Amino acid sequence: MKQINTIESQVRSYCRAYPVMFEKAKDHLLIDKDGKKYFDFLCGAGSLNYGHNNHILKKEIIDYLNEDGITHSLDLATRSKEDFLNSFSKYILEPRNLDYKLQFTGPTGTNAVEAAFKIARKITGRTKIISFTNGFHGVTLGALAATGNSHHRGGSGIPLNDVVFMPYDGYMGKKLNTIDYLRRLLEDNSSGVDLPAAVVLETVQGEGGINIASSKWLQSLQELCKEFGILVIVDDIQVGCGRTGSFFSFEGMGIEPDMITLSKSLSGFGLPFSLLLLKPGIDKWEPGEHNGTFRGNNMAFVTAKTAIEQYWANDDLEKQIATKSNILKHRLEEISDEFPSSDIQVRGKGMVYGIDCILEDLASEIKQKCFENGLILETCGPDDQVVKLLPPLTISESNLTKGLDILEKSIKEVMQESDFDKKLTMVTVQK
Amino acid sequence: MKQINTIESQVRSYCRAYPVMFEKAKDHLLIDKDGKKYFDFLCGAGSLNYGHNNHILKKEIIDYLNEDGITHSLDLATRSKEDFLNSFSKYILEPRNLDYKLQFTGPTGTNAVEAAFKIARKITGRTKIISFTNGFHGVTLGALAATGNSHHRGGSGIPLNDVVFMPYDGYMGKKLNTIDYLRRLLEDNSSGVDLPAAVVLETVQGEGGINIASSKWLQSLQELCKEFGILVIVDDIQVGCGRTGSFFSFEGMGIEPDMITLSKSLSGFGLPFSLLLLKPGIDKWEPGEHNGTFRGNNMAFVTAKTAIEQYWANDDLEKQIATKSNILKHRLEEISDEFPSSDIQVRGKGMVYGIDCILEDLASEIKQKCFENGLILETCGPDDQVVKLLPPLTISESNLTKGLDILEKSIKEVMQESDFDKKLTMVTVQK
Amino acid sequence: MKQINTIESQVRSYCRAYPVMFEKAKDHLLIDKDGKKYFDFLCGAGSLNYGHNNHILKKEIIDYLNEDGITHSLDLATRSKEDFLNSFSKYILEPRNLDYKLQFTGPTGTNAVEAAFKIARKITGRTKIISFTNGFHGVTLGALAATGNSHHRGGSGIPLNDVVFMPYDGYMGKKLNTIDYLRRLLEDNSSGVDLPAAVVLETVQGEGGINIASSKWLQSLQELCKEFGILVIVDDIQVGCGRTGSFFSFEGMGIEPDMITLSKSLSGFGLPFSLLLLKPGIDKWEPGEHNGTFRGNNMAFVTAKTAIEQYWANDDLEKQIATKSNILKHRLEEISDEFPSSDIQVRGKGMVYGIDCILEDLASEIKQKCFENGLILETCGPDDQVVKLLPPLTISESNLTKGLDILEKSIKEVMQESDFDKKLTMVTVQK
Amino acid sequence: MKQINTIESQVRSYCRAYPVMFEKAKDHLLIDKDGKKYFDFLCGAGSLNYGHNNHILKKEIIDYLNEDGITHSLDLATRSKEDFLNSFSKYILEPRNLDYKLQFTGPTGTNAVEAAFKIARKITGRTKIISFTNGFHGVTLGALAATGNSHHRGGSGIPLNDVVFMPYDGYMGKKLNTIDYLRRLLEDNSSGVDLPAAVVLETVQGEGGINIASSKWLQSLQELCKEFGILVIVDDIQVGCGRTGSFFSFEGMGIEPDMITLSKSLSGFGLPFSLLLLKPGIDKWEPGEHNGTFRGNNMAFVTAKTAIEQYWANDDLEKQIATKSNILKHRLEEISDEFPSSDIQVRGKGMVYGIDCILEDLASEIKQKCFENGLILETCGPDDQVVKLLPPLTISESNLTKGLDILEKSIKEVMQESDFDKKLTMVTVQK
Repeated sequence: MKQINTIESQVRSYCRAYPVMFEKAKDHLLIDKDGKKYFDFLCGAGSLNYGHNNHILKKEIIDYLNEDGITHSLDLATRSKEDFLNSFSKYILEPRNLDYKLQFTGPTGTNAVEAAFKIARKITGRTKIISFTNGFHGVTLGALAATGNSHHRGGSGIPLNDVVFMPYDGYMGKKLNTIDYLRRLLEDNSSGVDLPAAVVLETVQGEGGINIASSKWLQSLQELCKEFGILVIVDDIQVGCGRTGSFFSFEGMGIEPDMITLSKSLSGFGLPFSLLLLKPGIDKWEPGEHNGTFRGNNMAFVTAKTAIEQYWANDDLEKQIATKSNILKHRLEEISDEFPSSDIQVRGKGMVYGIDCILEDLASEIKQKCFENGLILETCGPDDQVVKLLPPLTISESNLTKGLDILEKSIKEVMQESDFDKKLTMVTVQK
Repeated sequence: MKQINTIESQVRSYCRAYPVMFEKAKDHLLIDKDGKKYFDFLCGAGSLNYGHNNHILKKEIIDYLNEDGITHSLDLATRSKEDFLNSFSKYILEPRNLDYKLQFTGPTGTNAVEAAFKIARKITGRTKIISFTNGFHGVTLGALAATGNSHHRGGSGIPLNDVVFMPYDGYMGKKLNTIDYLRRLLEDNSSGVDLPAAVVLETVQGEGGINIASSKWLQSLQELCKEFGILVIVDDIQVGCGRTGSFFSFEGMGIEPDMITLSKSLSGFGLPFSLLLLKPGIDKWEPGEHNGTFRGNNMAFVTAKTAIEQYWANDDLEKQIATKSNILKHRLEEISDEFPSSDIQVRGKGMVYGIDCILEDLASEIKQKCFENGLILETCGPDDQVVKLLPPLTISESNLTKGLDILEKSIKEVMQESDFDKKLTMVTVQK
Repeated sequence: MKQINTIESQVRSYCRAYPVMFEKAKDHLLIDKDGKKYFDFLCGAGSLNYGHNNHILKKEIIDYLNEDGITHSLDLATRSKEDFLNSFSKYILEPRNLDYKLQFTGPTGTNAVEAAFKIARKITGRTKIISFTNGFHGVTLGALAATGNSHHRGGSGIPLNDVVFMPYDGYMGKKLNTIDYLRRLLEDNSSGVDLPAAVVLETVQGEGGINIASSKWLQSLQELCKEFGILVIVDDIQVGCGRTGSFFSFEGMGIEPDMITLSKSLSGFGLPFSLLLLKPGIDKWEPGEHNGTFRGNNMAFVTAKTAIEQYWANDDLEKQIATKSNILKHRLEEISDEFPSSDIQVRGKGMVYGIDCILEDLASEIKQKCFENGLILETCGPDDQVVKLLPPLTISESNLTKGLDILEKSIKEVMQESDFDKKLTMVTVQK
Repeated sequence: MKQINTIESQVRSYCRAYPVMFEKAKDHLLIDKDGKKYFDFLCGAGSLNYGHNNHILKKEIIDYLNEDGITHSLDLATRSKEDFLNSFSKYILEPRNLDYKLQFTGPTGTNAVEAAFKIARKITGRTKIISFTNGFHGVTLGALAATGNSHHRGGSGIPLNDVVFMPYDGYMGKKLNTIDYLRRLLEDNSSGVDLPAAVVLETVQGEGGINIASSKWLQSLQELCKEFGILVIVDDIQVGCGRTGSFFSFEGMGIEPDMITLSKSLSGFGLPFSLLLLKPGIDKWEPGEHNGTFRGNNMAFVTAKTAIEQYWANDDLEKQIATKSNILKHRLEEISDEFPSSDIQVRGKGMVYGIDCILEDLASEIKQKCFENGLILETCGPDDQVVKLLPPLTISESNLTKGLDILEKSIKEVMQESDFDKKLTMVTVQK
């Protein structure tokens, strides 16, 4: 790792927490240069829902390359794009009675978010976007303004503006229905909160600490937005593509967003790929008005199409996720009982789960111990105090259990070696 | 193309100008679903400098996939990244005596530009960036503010700020040395132009109409920037990676930028990949401060490394470009003599060339006629009045000539069928 | 009024509500060109706390003119400024143990607010200001961003930024302690609310509907601000200079702001005059960095000095205000009992009081009827639903009572003539 | 001056350069507390065109006070306002065939500028304002963005945006017609300079160094603006009200602005007073949309009306200014011949003149020496290198000459005592 440690920028991060050289990967495993295997419950921060080097997708991509399929085409019409559109339409949109136009923005999540903000502002003639506390939407300037994390915001070098933050579901506990507060501000001609073009939100906040919006909250939000002509953007970049149990994270929750951003696991193979879904009435772009060199990533079209046909043509995967979600939930709740504090919370849905360890150090030591024991996962939340689990959706039940065994073992070791019980008691008492 | 025409967003653009379905591509050729072959002098707007499905790169990527190499890893340390860093250091930086840190931003050009602006503002404590007339640097909010084109700027929905535009080299013809003007503004305490954090520029403006900065202008600019503590960012996204004849477009021009952005042809295979080069003293990021899901595109590391070793380990390619540049230049000058106006200009360098047709309609009809005759190229410039040629750097001389034959034939046909001679005369007389 | 109606701008407002030509004024009376007298409970929106043409002040100003005292001097040292500073120091600051520097900004309230924001941002290096719902701080660009009213905000023509609005005391009723909410946002590294340079607030929101902050809320706010290095700016432009019963509105409430803005009644004679008080440690201006032609209004120095010596050298006026405040309060509560709704609220303090009529139309008709009956007052609040009373502090008790008699009579007439009882009942039932 | 030196803010400026206590003033004289008289060629930076305590105006204001005329009335209809409107219409607008609406903004110049920007942005739907190098338009946030001086800009604490600076007439000497440059930017779809709502300019830049726009330049600018739907705002705050020889500074120059700002000498008596003149079609304000406590300064109405009737009902004053302008011009050119450098420039028009001393120290020492010799004047320009003369328009020829005698004497003394001849020679040679 000589070069990485010397000439790669100081900005590098994950390689600092997991300082080994990885060489191969398969399904739920990352393998380092010495052949050591690690269970991967980080999964590219949600980009590898179908595991590493998924063999079905790999076969398709190799075939495509062998046939000299097009790899780069700007946004020319290509067979692979047409095929992807067909599959997305047939297996994703139609069965769910959803009517959206598809915009291929630059292949990063932040680019899809930027596109959504631009078109929202353009067609409403309003300038403000409402984002929510602990939301994460990217780090390019437009998206960064909607990202709550001060660590990322601090990198901008200029004031971040034209975005207003509102409290997410449950932000003030049970004493405040945060939609009531937003309604009060919007109804008040003198609140200082200008009518926004759009709200942007994650239904489960991945980076923000595995915070979960209720159906009721989402419905109230959508109703309020309709009333005031505000567009609803669901950022499904991290928790879409099946992570919460259904293809879109908001399915069954009684809302239908005006725009949806997808990326991360969309290609299914870890390839850069992003999509903005827009209600047809919102798709008022001029040709080429938002562009970008890699907005048609044909290899990603190929794997994304195959992933859709493989995993979303029937409900097999959804059922498996439900089963594994149960395993996750119950096992994590058992594990959390081992902590000497009843404040430790397990939060999650589908196959995205977090253990809120209250203390940043505790979460960090657990992450570190897991790594030593062969399990890779990350922490999240405003103080990185939440241990976050994103196992592949396609992992076998037995491997899922093995990964959780490592987690349990690691937590026990951390609790034995350290004095976190005292610290936790102190924090709990203070509260 | 049913799906593309119905459910893809209105924002689609190239597929409108070239309304056929492409299925395969090889080297300098794009092949549509009926097997018709097109010479590709568009080359993904500069993303395919080594042609489509370059067989050397293709072999490497297939091997990598077959061995279950890692495709997605956030910014974990991987063998493929380490290898890329090694090659980039050995074959690109060291022989040129350049000392830079490498930041893998999100894999789009605009993301690298955003990262450059952020770090420039952060470390200087200044907020303004100076960009130049007709510059193009991307369409996410931070980069869009530095992009001159009003068509793209109009999509933002909010005022674009914190960027000041200055006249590019030659913008006012010979009557104004534009660096003198910039110097006057910076030296004047009351000019209203705040001292900027950085200037950003292309040495050849690709989208802006093939405008070429002279060595002298670049040197004066760098000197002025040094004097006022302003960082120099060269955006080599379109014209780097060999397009102007050397790996970096500014080689031999007497400047050494503080930051350089690379993308497009960096992977060599059309894969999303971006890089920000920073002088070590500028690399003051906190870990993870600028991040992104796809900032380590391992497949792109593999092809990029191979491309560097294949094409930049010796000066063979540079020599070939020089030869083909000569062919391009002389042939285009001959062709331009056929126009009934001496104002038609041929501008270019290396293997990026433009014919400034003065009239938007004329450029557009030439593009259309070329397409009919089997040659794909695009127009650029503020009024899309420039026919732009970006043939693969690796094209054979005979194929280059064949492509130029189609161009010449097409221009002749356009001139015969239309009354552009009259219109051109009128425009010329008016001037 | 031919000229006023034809060549004065459409922006004129009060003259629309009170369409008569006024010619003279004395103490609590405005007198129109036909000699009709009106009780003035509008008092220049709080600019005439000592009444019109206060004879003591008038004498001083005439003497000063007769002696060729300086009227305009930019910020040269003048005898009248030195004398004002002496009196302000001796009778206002010293007895209250307050240590402030005095900055004479341009002579409008908005200019003092702009100066406060500039120095707060400059010395903290932070860019955001926190303002509160229903706050009003002026309409020049910097202050307008901190003004909640959408009618005024709409005039800006550009997005208003760098100000974040927080809920004022009681904004969500008893279910939310709004300081708890602000604390949560500031303590949360990922709330999206950047640490601000300052908070700005009125202790009684005059334009916003006579909303009153409690001592406890103000103290919690100041404590929170101290903890996070946030400056506290009290905008005492409308309710300072005795309006709430003491010279500064926050006296006896347990806070000591970092900056205070004063204007309106500061000159005592209705002359343009503004003052920014700054804690000495904050006064980090460069000479002339914030300037303005009329920042030393010498005639205002003369009257302001006299007003201070006349009214604030002892506590006579304060005692009188207390007595008259009681009269106001009790009488208004009696009057409000006449409304057929228990939701009608009387709010106020010292000699600023409001009757919240719930219905905009009702408040408007009361204002109109009062005018017909010889009493001038205005409405305020987000929907102009609050009838607002600002009688001169120096009004005699009998004249105060006469004014209130007109108000009662007018309300009775409105209630008899209209069907507001039904409408109020409906609104009340809905709630 | 104990209080001024201890409790007035650090921001104070003029009192630092002229550290004496002034007590009285009459016509062209300022008189300090010891009775020492100073010729006042500073004149409140252009606010005292008719001298201090002009006896005609003083009589009116005392009469008005004695009759209990209204001093403060927000924007109620008052006799004094109606009378002012009448006189302004009759003696200023009608004889010049000008058709404008009058908006009484807050009584500071910066407030009038802010109002102009707001309405320009609102009615055009564009956000940018074009200002010119070395322009000064005020220091509240909106106006400050259009003020070139970095000393003032530095006080803002946040980036100043939505204003673009263009080179003023002659900014690049004779090698660039700056209107050609602006035209090029506006005609170029890709210049990065968004079409602005308005341009704002002074016809003679007072703070910026006495830079004078030619009629031809102004006409070309207005023509260009018409072509692109850009409003023209002439900021006549410093050089209007007769300073350049006619009431408006642009009279006889072939332009008719869309908006004009007036302040400073508008009241004639040094009282805070401002006015925005708008072409009727631009006056699209909602009632009260731009407001302010002191927007109807009745005492200023009284003196402004009297000043207009006294000085602008016939052309006597204009003729006198012409004569005195000649005196000023010739005398200053003689004086400048005494400098040992032919680069020293005399610039001016009407009764605003400057001597560009090239060296900041030289201008500063001249100012200081003049003060010692009994003449008050200030320096201006980006480096404060210009000695600026603004004698009262009403000064007698003999007093004007006496003032100029002091200037000449002072310059001679400075040149004898210092080595400026050497320094000037060096600077000249370098150039």
